[in-house]
Amino acid sequence: MDLKQWVGIAAGLLTSISMLPQLIKIIKEKKAKDISILMLSILTTGNTLWAVYGFMRNDWPIIITNFISITINSITGYYRIRYKDR
Amino acid sequence: MDLKQWVGIAAGLLTSISMLPQLIKIIKEKKAKDISILMLSILTTGNTLWAVYGFMRNDWPIIITNFISITINSITGYYRIRYKDR
Repeated sequence: MDLKQWVGIAAGLLTSISMLPQLIKIIKEKKAKDISILMLSILTTGNTLWAVYGFMRNDWPIIITNFISITINSITGYYRIRYKDR
Repeated sequence: MDLKQWVGIAAGLLTSISMLPQLIKIIKEKKAKDISILMLSILTTGNTLWAVYGFMRNDWPIIITNFISITINSITGYYRIRYKDR
């Protein structure tokens, strides 16, 4: 693997796990009122389209990193709705 | 352009503007305490690496969509810090 591929993998991993600290913060503090549901919805829709794009190109790094994002962002969305009044 | 490219462009646009509703919500409500600074930092670092990856591959859609993300996410980070006590 050359440098280019390592940069791509690092970028994909960082962006796909980026919502994890937000999810952990919501679960720990049980507060989510300031978080935009519209942001999470647009982001998850975008990740879903990236996964479709990855399938169309048979590009597994794009498919996998976006499935990680979809999972984390959907769980974050669940807790955002669950703690919507706090 | 074929369907694949349209799906890629739509995915890129959605993920790059996804933080915009969050930025607008913070500016309107002047509240940001529930938002994770670590999330914004990881996301912006990931976007920066994607932009570097785009330069390495001379892939302008990747460069442009990630510059949009870096701009919006950095401004969101600024307001997150500015309203950290509310």
